[in-house]
Amino acid sequence: MNAKTAPAAERNDLVIDRLVRAPREKLWRAWTDPVLLKEWWCPKPWTTEVRAFELRPGGDFHTFMSGPDGGTSDNPGCFLEIEPRQRLVFTSMLTGGWRPNTPWMGFTAIITLADELGGTRYVARVMHPDAATRERHAELGFFDGWNTCITQLEAFAQQLP
Amino acid sequence: MNAKTAPAAERNDLVIDRLVRAPREKLWRAWTDPVLLKEWWCPKPWTTEVRAFELRPGGDFHTFMSGPDGGTSDNPGCFLEIEPRQRLVFTSMLTGGWRPNTPWMGFTAIITLADELGGTRYVARVMHPDAATRERHAELGFFDGWNTCITQLEAFAQQLP
Repeated sequence: MNAKTAPAAERNDLVIDRLVRAPREKLWRAWTDPVLLKEWWCPKPWTTEVRAFELRPGGDFHTFMSGPDGGTSDNPGCFLEIEPRQRLVFTSMLTGGWRPNTPWMGFTAIITLADELGGTRYVARVMHPDAATRERHAELGFFDGWNTCITQLEAFAQQLP
Repeated sequence: MNAKTAPAAERNDLVIDRLVRAPREKLWRAWTDPVLLKEWWCPKPWTTEVRAFELRPGGDFHTFMSGPDGGTSDNPGCFLEIEPRQRLVFTSMLTGGWRPNTPWMGFTAIITLADELGGTRYVARVMHPDAATRERHAELGFFDGWNTCITQLEAFAQQLP
Protein backbone atom coordinates (compact mmCIF):
# COMPACT_ATOMS: atom_id res chain seq x y z
CA MET A 1 0.00 0.00 0.00
CA ASN A 2 1.49 3.37 -0.92
CA ALA A 3 1.29 6.64 0.94
CA LYS A 4 -1.64 7.96 -1.07
CA THR A 5 -4.06 5.03 -0.71
CA ALA A 6 -3.22 4.07 2.89
CA PRO A 7 -5.50 4.99 5.80
CA ALA A 8 -4.66 8.50 6.99
CA ALA A 9 -2.56 7.50 10.01
CA GLU A 10 -0.51 4.99 8.02
CA ARG A 11 0.57 7.73 5.62
CA ASN A 12 3.10 8.67 8.29
CA ASP A 13 4.65 5.20 8.24
CA LEU A 14 7.69 3.76 6.49
CA VAL A 15 7.53 0.00 6.04
CA ILE A 16 10.09 -2.65 5.16
CA ASP A 17 8.71 -6.12 4.44
CA ARG A 18 11.25 -8.83 3.61
CA LEU A 19 11.83 -12.54 3.57
CA VAL A 20 14.93 -13.02 5.70
CA ARG A 21 16.79 -16.28 5.15
CA ALA A 22 17.33 -17.25 8.76
CA PRO A 23 15.21 -19.08 11.36
CA ARG A 24 12.87 -16.96 13.44
CA GLU A 25 14.35 -18.28 16.68
CA LYS A 26 17.86 -17.09 15.76
CA LEU A 27 16.63 -13.71 14.56
CA TRP A 28 14.85 -13.25 17.87
CA ARG A 29 18.01 -14.15 19.79
CA ALA A 30 20.13 -11.78 17.72
CA TRP A 31 17.58 -9.02 18.42
CA THR A 32 17.05 -9.53 22.13
CA ASP A 33 20.55 -10.15 23.46
CA PRO A 34 22.44 -6.83 23.56
CA VAL A 35 25.78 -8.61 23.12
CA LEU A 36 24.48 -9.98 19.82
CA LEU A 37 22.45 -6.92 18.82
CA LYS A 38 25.47 -4.67 18.68
CA GLU A 39 27.05 -6.87 16.02
CA TRP A 40 24.47 -5.97 13.37
CA TRP A 41 22.53 -2.93 14.67
CA CYS A 42 24.09 -0.19 12.55
CA PRO A 43 25.59 -0.15 9.03
CA LYS A 44 29.23 -1.16 9.15
CA PRO A 45 31.89 0.18 9.57
CA TRP A 46 29.90 2.17 12.18
CA THR A 47 29.82 0.47 15.58
CA THR A 48 27.14 0.28 18.27
CA GLU A 49 27.45 0.67 22.01
CA VAL A 50 24.38 -0.62 23.83
CA ARG A 51 24.01 1.75 26.78
CA ALA A 52 20.76 0.30 28.11
CA PHE A 53 18.74 -2.77 27.21
CA GLU A 54 15.86 -3.58 29.55
CA LEU A 55 13.65 -5.91 27.53
CA ARG A 56 10.26 -5.21 29.12
CA PRO A 57 7.45 -2.69 28.55
CA GLY A 58 8.75 0.67 29.74
CA GLY A 59 12.33 -0.60 29.81
CA ASP A 60 15.25 1.56 28.71
CA PHE A 61 16.62 0.89 25.21
CA HIS A 62 19.56 3.13 24.42
CA THR A 63 22.07 2.70 21.61
CA PHE A 64 24.98 4.95 20.73
CA MET A 65 26.64 4.66 17.33
CA SER A 66 30.11 5.79 16.26
CA GLY A 67 31.54 6.15 12.79
CA PRO A 68 35.14 5.85 11.60
CA ASP A 69 35.10 9.59 10.78
CA GLY A 70 34.34 10.50 14.41
CA GLY A 71 30.61 10.99 13.81
CA THR A 72 28.18 9.77 16.46
CA SER A 73 24.45 9.12 16.80
CA ASP A 74 22.81 8.96 20.21
CA ASN A 75 19.48 7.12 20.34
CA PRO A 76 17.77 6.83 23.70
CA GLY A 77 14.41 5.10 23.66
CA CYS A 78 12.06 2.71 25.36
CA PHE A 79 10.60 -0.74 24.77
CA LEU A 80 6.81 -0.72 24.59
CA GLU A 81 5.71 -4.29 23.87
CA ILE A 82 7.44 -7.67 23.64
CA GLU A 83 5.79 -10.82 22.36
CA PRO A 84 8.57 -13.41 22.36
CA ARG A 85 9.71 -14.53 18.90
CA GLN A 86 6.85 -12.61 17.23
CA ARG A 87 6.64 -8.93 17.91
CA LEU A 88 8.76 -6.18 19.39
CA VAL A 89 7.78 -2.52 19.70
CA PHE A 90 10.03 0.36 20.71
CA THR A 91 9.96 4.15 20.46
CA SER A 92 12.20 7.20 20.52
CA MET A 93 9.32 9.29 21.92
CA LEU A 94 9.91 7.95 25.44
CA THR A 95 12.87 6.68 27.43
CA GLY A 96 13.07 4.17 30.31
CA GLY A 97 10.25 4.39 32.84
CA TRP A 98 8.01 6.01 30.19
CA ARG A 99 9.77 9.39 30.44
CA PRO A 100 9.05 11.75 27.54
CA ASN A 101 12.06 12.23 25.27
CA THR A 102 13.18 15.03 22.96
CA PRO A 103 14.16 12.79 20.02
CA TRP A 104 16.09 14.09 17.03
CA MET A 105 13.80 11.73 15.07
CA GLY A 106 10.45 10.83 16.61
CA PHE A 107 9.21 7.34 15.75
CA THR A 108 7.77 4.07 17.01
CA ALA A 109 8.95 0.85 15.35
CA ILE A 110 6.91 -2.37 15.26
CA ILE A 111 8.99 -5.40 14.29
CA THR A 112 7.11 -8.59 13.45
CA LEU A 113 8.52 -12.02 12.69
CA ALA A 114 6.61 -14.92 11.12
CA ASP A 115 7.71 -18.30 9.80
CA GLU A 116 7.74 -18.56 6.03
CA LEU A 117 9.08 -21.11 3.59
CA GLY A 118 12.79 -20.43 3.27
CA GLY A 119 13.13 -18.35 6.40
CA THR A 120 11.25 -15.60 8.24
CA ARG A 121 8.93 -12.83 7.11
CA TYR A 122 10.44 -9.73 8.72
CA VAL A 123 8.34 -6.56 8.78
CA ALA A 124 9.50 -3.26 10.25
CA ARG A 125 6.74 -0.65 10.44
CA VAL A 126 8.13 2.71 11.49
CA MET A 127 5.46 5.24 12.49
CA HIS A 128 6.10 8.99 12.66
CA PRO A 129 4.26 11.89 14.34
CA ASP A 130 3.55 13.60 11.01
CA ALA A 131 4.23 13.50 7.28
CA ALA A 132 7.16 15.93 7.56
CA THR A 133 9.02 13.66 9.99
CA ARG A 134 8.33 10.65 7.77
CA GLU A 135 9.74 12.53 4.76
CA ARG A 136 12.80 13.64 6.70
CA HIS A 137 13.44 10.04 7.80
CA ALA A 138 13.12 8.82 4.22
CA GLU A 139 15.45 11.54 2.94
CA LEU A 140 18.03 10.72 5.60
CA GLY A 141 18.30 7.27 4.05
CA PHE A 142 15.84 5.21 6.11
CA PHE A 143 15.40 2.44 3.52
CA ASP A 144 19.08 2.14 2.73
CA GLY A 145 20.09 2.20 6.40
CA TRP A 146 17.49 -0.16 7.82
CA ASN A 147 17.80 -2.59 4.90
CA THR A 148 21.56 -2.72 5.35
CA CYS A 149 21.07 -3.59 9.02
CA ILE A 150 18.49 -6.27 8.23
CA THR A 151 20.93 -7.82 5.75
CA GLN A 152 23.62 -7.73 8.46
CA LEU A 153 21.13 -9.31 10.89
CA GLU A 154 20.36 -12.06 8.35
CA ALA A 155 24.05 -12.92 7.87
CA PHE A 156 24.72 -12.71 11.60
CA ALA A 157 21.76 -14.94 12.55
CA GLN A 158 22.68 -17.53 9.92
CA GLN A 159 26.02 -18.21 11.61
CA LEU A 160 24.62 -18.40 15.17
CA PRO A 161 24.97 -21.91 16.66
CA MET B 1 11.73 17.08 47.01
CA ASN B 2 12.08 20.34 45.08
CA ALA B 3 13.39 20.91 41.59
CA LYS B 4 16.90 21.81 42.73
CA THR B 5 17.67 18.79 44.92
CA ALA B 6 15.88 16.12 42.84
CA PRO B 7 17.78 13.68 40.59
CA ALA B 8 18.33 15.27 37.18
CA ALA B 9 15.50 13.48 35.34
CA GLU B 10 12.96 14.26 38.06
CA ARG B 11 13.62 17.97 37.67
CA ASN B 12 11.31 17.79 34.66
CA ASP B 13 8.45 16.44 36.78
CA LEU B 14 5.48 18.10 38.43
CA VAL B 15 4.09 16.12 41.36
CA ILE B 16 0.84 16.25 43.32
CA ASP B 17 0.70 14.10 46.45
CA ARG B 18 -2.56 14.18 48.44
CA LEU B 19 -4.66 12.24 50.89
CA VAL B 20 -7.99 11.84 49.13
CA ARG B 21 -10.94 11.08 51.43
CA ALA B 22 -12.50 8.26 49.44
CA PRO B 23 -11.90 4.50 49.24
CA ARG B 24 -9.29 3.33 46.74
CA GLU B 25 -11.76 0.98 45.06
CA LYS B 26 -14.19 3.82 44.28
CA LEU B 27 -11.43 6.09 43.04
CA TRP B 28 -10.28 3.35 40.70
CA ARG B 29 -13.81 2.87 39.39
CA ALA B 30 -14.27 6.60 38.84
CA TRP B 31 -10.97 6.64 36.94
CA THR B 32 -11.40 3.58 34.75
CA ASP B 33 -15.02 3.81 33.60
CA PRO B 34 -15.27 6.50 30.90
CA VAL B 35 -18.91 7.21 31.80
CA LEU B 36 -17.73 8.09 35.33
CA LEU B 37 -14.43 9.71 34.29
CA LYS B 38 -16.10 12.43 32.28
CA GLU B 39 -17.97 13.64 35.40
CA TRP B 40 -14.79 14.84 37.14
CA TRP B 41 -12.03 14.92 34.50
CA CYS B 42 -11.83 18.67 33.84
CA PRO B 43 -12.48 21.73 36.01
CA LYS B 44 -16.17 22.63 35.95
CA PRO B 45 -18.01 24.27 34.24
CA TRP B 46 -15.89 22.81 31.41
CA THR B 47 -17.17 19.46 30.20
CA THR B 48 -15.38 16.35 28.92
CA GLU B 49 -16.18 14.16 25.95
CA VAL B 50 -14.36 10.83 26.10
CA ARG B 51 -13.56 10.05 22.47
CA ALA B 52 -11.55 6.89 23.13
CA PHE B 53 -10.91 4.83 26.22
CA GLU B 54 -9.15 1.51 25.67
CA LEU B 55 -7.84 0.57 29.10
CA ARG B 56 -4.82 -1.57 28.13
CA PRO B 57 -1.16 -0.91 27.32
CA GLY B 58 -1.08 0.82 23.94
CA GLY B 59 -4.80 1.58 24.10
CA ASP B 60 -6.26 4.84 22.86
CA PHE B 61 -7.11 7.44 25.53
CA HIS B 62 -8.60 10.57 24.03
CA THR B 63 -10.48 13.32 25.83
CA PHE B 64 -11.93 16.50 24.39
CA MET B 65 -12.88 19.36 26.67
CA SER B 66 -15.26 22.24 26.01
CA GLY B 67 -15.70 25.45 27.97
CA PRO B 68 -18.80 27.64 28.35
CA ASP B 69 -17.01 30.41 26.38
CA GLY B 70 -16.60 28.14 23.33
CA GLY B 71 -12.99 27.22 24.13
CA THR B 72 -11.88 23.64 23.51
CA SER B 73 -8.94 21.41 24.40
CA ASP B 74 -8.19 18.28 22.40
CA ASN B 75 -6.07 15.67 24.18
CA PRO B 76 -5.29 12.47 22.33
CA GLY B 77 -3.04 10.02 24.16
CA CYS B 78 -2.32 6.44 25.03
CA PHE B 79 -2.42 4.19 28.08
CA LEU B 80 0.98 2.70 28.89
CA GLU B 81 0.55 0.62 32.03
CA ILE B 82 -2.38 -0.47 34.18
CA GLU B 83 -2.05 -2.16 37.56
CA PRO B 84 -5.62 -2.50 38.82
CA ARG B 85 -6.46 -0.30 41.83
CA GLN B 86 -2.80 0.73 42.22
CA ARG B 87 -1.17 2.35 39.25
CA LEU B 88 -2.13 3.86 35.94
CA VAL B 89 0.25 5.40 33.40
CA PHE B 90 -0.70 7.37 30.30
CA THR B 91 1.04 9.74 27.90
CA SER B 92 0.37 12.46 25.34
CA MET B 93 3.56 11.51 23.46
CA LEU B 94 1.82 8.56 21.77
CA THR B 95 -1.73 7.73 20.70
CA GLY B 96 -3.51 4.37 20.35
CA GLY B 97 -1.38 1.55 18.93
CA TRP B 98 1.79 3.36 20.10
CA ARG B 99 1.64 5.94 17.29
CA PRO B 100 3.83 9.01 17.86
CA ASN B 101 1.78 12.12 18.57
CA THR B 102 2.42 15.85 18.09
CA PRO B 103 1.14 16.93 21.51
CA TRP B 104 0.56 20.59 22.39
CA MET B 105 1.93 19.55 25.81
CA GLY B 106 4.21 16.53 25.96
CA PHE B 107 3.96 14.53 29.18
CA THR B 108 3.59 11.12 30.78
CA ALA B 109 1.48 10.86 33.94
CA ILE B 110 1.90 8.14 36.57
CA ILE B 111 -1.06 7.93 38.95
CA THR B 112 -0.61 5.80 42.07
CA LEU B 113 -3.19 4.91 44.70
CA ALA B 114 -2.44 3.44 48.14
CA ASP B 115 -4.63 2.82 51.17
CA GLU B 116 -4.06 5.26 54.01
CA LEU B 117 -5.90 6.00 57.25
CA GLY B 118 -8.84 8.19 56.31
CA GLY B 119 -8.80 7.42 52.61
CA THR B 120 -6.32 6.99 49.78
CA ARG B 121 -2.86 8.40 49.12
CA TYR B 122 -3.16 9.78 45.57
CA VAL B 123 0.03 10.70 43.76
CA ALA B 124 0.16 12.16 40.25
CA ARG B 125 3.69 12.39 38.84
CA VAL B 126 3.71 14.24 35.55
CA MET B 127 6.98 13.90 33.60
CA HIS B 128 7.99 16.27 30.79
CA PRO B 129 10.55 16.05 27.97
CA ASP B 130 12.53 19.02 29.29
CA ALA B 131 12.58 21.81 31.87
CA ALA B 132 10.98 24.32 29.47
CA THR B 133 7.91 22.11 28.95
CA ARG B 134 7.64 21.56 32.70
CA GLU B 135 7.75 25.33 33.29
CA ARG B 136 5.17 25.97 30.60
CA HIS B 137 2.85 23.37 32.15
CA ALA B 138 3.28 24.96 35.59
CA GLU B 139 2.63 28.44 34.20
CA LEU B 140 -0.50 27.26 32.39
CA GLY B 141 -1.93 26.39 35.80
CA PHE B 142 -1.03 22.72 36.21
CA PHE B 143 -1.35 22.66 40.01
CA ASP B 144 -4.60 24.62 40.11
CA GLY B 145 -6.14 22.57 37.28
CA TRP B 146 -5.11 19.08 38.36
CA ASN B 147 -5.89 19.76 42.03
CA THR B 148 -9.36 21.01 41.11
CA CYS B 149 -9.98 17.77 39.20
CA ILE B 150 -8.71 15.62 42.06
CA THR B 151 -11.07 17.45 44.43
CA GLN B 152 -13.89 16.80 41.96
CA LEU B 153 -12.84 13.14 41.78
CA GLU B 154 -12.87 12.92 45.58
CA ALA B 155 -16.41 14.32 45.85
CA PHE B 156 -17.61 12.19 42.94
CA ALA B 157 -16.11 8.96 44.33
CA GLN B 158 -17.57 9.63 47.80
CA GLN B 159 -21.10 9.50 46.46
CA LEU B 160 -20.62 6.37 44.34
CA PRO B 161 -22.72 3.42 45.63
